[in-house]
Amino acid sequence: MRETNSVSSRCRVALLGFGTVGSAVARRFLSSEPFLSKIHLTHILDRRAGEKRASLRAESVAWTSSIDDVLHSDVDVVVEAIGGLATAADWIRAALLSGKSVVTANKQVIAHHGADLQTLAARQGRQLRFEAAVGGAMPIVRAIGDGLAGDRITRIVAILNGTTNAVLSRIEAGGCAMDEAVRDARERGYAEADVSADLDGHDASAKLAILCGLAFGLRVDPSQISVRTAGAVSASDFARAGRRGATIRQIAFADYDRAASTLTAWVAPVEVDCASIFARAKGPQNAALITGAHGGEIGMFGAGAGDDATAVSVLSDVAAIARDKAAIVPAPNLTSDFKFQSSDFKLDFRVESPVLLEAV
Amino acid sequence: MRETNSVSSRCRVALLGFGTVGSAVARRFLSSEPFLSKIHLTHILDRRAGEKRASLRAESVAWTSSIDDVLHSDVDVVVEAIGGLATAADWIRAALLSGKSVVTANKQVIAHHGADLQTLAARQGRQLRFEAAVGGAMPIVRAIGDGLAGDRITRIVAILNGTTNAVLSRIEAGGCAMDEAVRDARERGYAEADVSADLDGHDASAKLAILCGLAFGLRVDPSQISVRTAGAVSASDFARAGRRGATIRQIAFADYDRAASTLTAWVAPVEVDCASIFARAKGPQNAALITGAHGGEIGMFGAGAGDDATAVSVLSDVAAIARDKAAIVPAPNLTSDFKFQSSDFKLDFRVESPVLLEAV
Repeated sequence: MRETNSVSSRCRVALLGFGTVGSAVARRFLSSEPFLSKIHLTHILDRRAGEKRASLRAESVAWTSSIDDVLHSDVDVVVEAIGGLATAADWIRAALLSGKSVVTANKQVIAHHGADLQTLAARQGRQLRFEAAVGGAMPIVRAIGDGLAGDRITRIVAILNGTTNAVLSRIEAGGCAMDEAVRDARERGYAEADVSADLDGHDASAKLAILCGLAFGLRVDPSQISVRTAGAVSASDFARAGRRGATIRQIAFADYDRAASTLTAWVAPVEVDCASIFARAKGPQNAALITGAHGGEIGMFGAGAGDDATAVSVLSDVAAIARDKAAIVPAPNLTSDFKFQSSDFKLDFRVESPVLLEAV
Repeated sequence: MRETNSVSSRCRVALLGFGTVGSAVARRFLSSEPFLSKIHLTHILDRRAGEKRASLRAESVAWTSSIDDVLHSDVDVVVEAIGGLATAADWIRAALLSGKSVVTANKQVIAHHGADLQTLAARQGRQLRFEAAVGGAMPIVRAIGDGLAGDRITRIVAILNGTTNAVLSRIEAGGCAMDEAVRDARERGYAEADVSADLDGHDASAKLAILCGLAFGLRVDPSQISVRTAGAVSASDFARAGRRGATIRQIAFADYDRAASTLTAWVAPVEVDCASIFARAKGPQNAALITGAHGGEIGMFGAGAGDDATAVSVLSDVAAIARDKAAIVPAPNLTSDFKFQSSDFKLDFRVESPVLLEAV
């Protein structure tokens, strides 16, 4: 059986938020999986703790709607799954200040406050981990921040929004209208009620900003990243692309020219060759090609949306903290001293096999 | 600029072996890359230190042919790049006992002695890292041992030997004979003089044994893994596969049925669908599909052979140790209590898109 035998003592966990992600995480914690044997979910915070506690059979868990109960508890790790920006950032900060390590799936908090929160975590001797904030179950945060730290990364091309990919690949497969594809994604649990942040590229640009920090050491405000909405893509766009041996995906692109201190970064729906790994990403999948000066191209793909996929990354982060309470996810020294090149989405680059990638 | 700002103090490194991998690693260490600013190569051990020192312009490096000079030095990290089994294992053990952390690219040592060396490293409070032992620049050791620790991995299907992949994809592209393809791989630096361990599957089976330990917590002796040589594959085999929309790759396969405590594992040349990520791996590339019970399939691909690719993984490991001298790569509690199912290589499974995979 798999066990992390370096978990020497019990690790106590509090979960903030019992929505879709939070409840998926809670179910995994309360399963009897061997690797979780020394990790205990002891607290769940939810605004509607009173109503929700009945939905989970777990007598060992204390429910609360007060963050103070968590901050004053003896938990080692706080898992933030409430979403949003201001409150989540405040609570993560408070948790670090009260000596807890933090795991979050919140890309907005990390994109906007990640550097400061990392500095705070390091000062407190605690960990801040956020694998679930980018790429779903695909461990791209570790790949870029840790596994490829020995390379000099020059470019990232990726599908980072599973919802939009589910919508676009549904139009591709069914020749249907945008509305119908969005409805289908909602029914399958790949989309929330409001998909505008997904389709418009704001979700992907937050994730791309996080990756730019890890890969290039650049402090990028997500609002600096040019976005073009995928909300206007139609079945006839796909038909036109298809005649060129291509299809359409929402691509997040970042290229850093160190010599010129110039970052080019954007999120847009673009044509990708049908043979590329991007075209092969169907449904809520994510995919990424990371180019290094020394190791060449590294590719990854996997489930990019869905509560189970997110829960895998959250649990991996908690397990990493349980194994080693001293380590911190690498926090690059970020610089803002670079030119930001806005893009007209005219592309001419090769990915893996020759890939046509043009603005739709 | 990228810097690992959590490297608080200098990290001193000794390199054992100045062959092809060792010299590539040394060149990187002696470059002026910012993330290496606090990591210093101070010692190089080589049997022929006297001759080789002239090939490297580095006055700050002490050359030696005696392991005692390294063990008694003040280095923090020993990078083992001598290859082979007995001496390398002895020196890694001695380095850990003398309080050094160790980074190695040596799959044979980790496959045969990894568990014991990990236990020793943990007891010594030092790290043993081996990202470069599997997958070249592709960070699969971290992905399985850390990034997907929150999943329950059930299956690994992978191309793990870059040399064999270079040879097979050369036959595929050129319709040439095995001899000519091997010669071509040697000329391109993808193959050593003796390719028998590559083609016969022994290199890949050692790597697969390492991954079985990380993914399933199983202590697998590489010799338990059934292998079938790829050395007899001919251009006419490729032509026959091509008529079925397939090509041929050396695949390493491991599937663990926890309920039945049964591991099925083998390395063999098999037909793979032309649309699969395995067929798309050309030259010395590696590729892997990792199936998790919760997160589904995660795919990875990248440069699997070549000194620069190996050096990326070695440097990433050294950077991880420099950042955090307390952490240990997760060491699963290994069990030998499972049935080993020998395989007739008859396969019937789906990878990513439907993939035909049959014994050649």
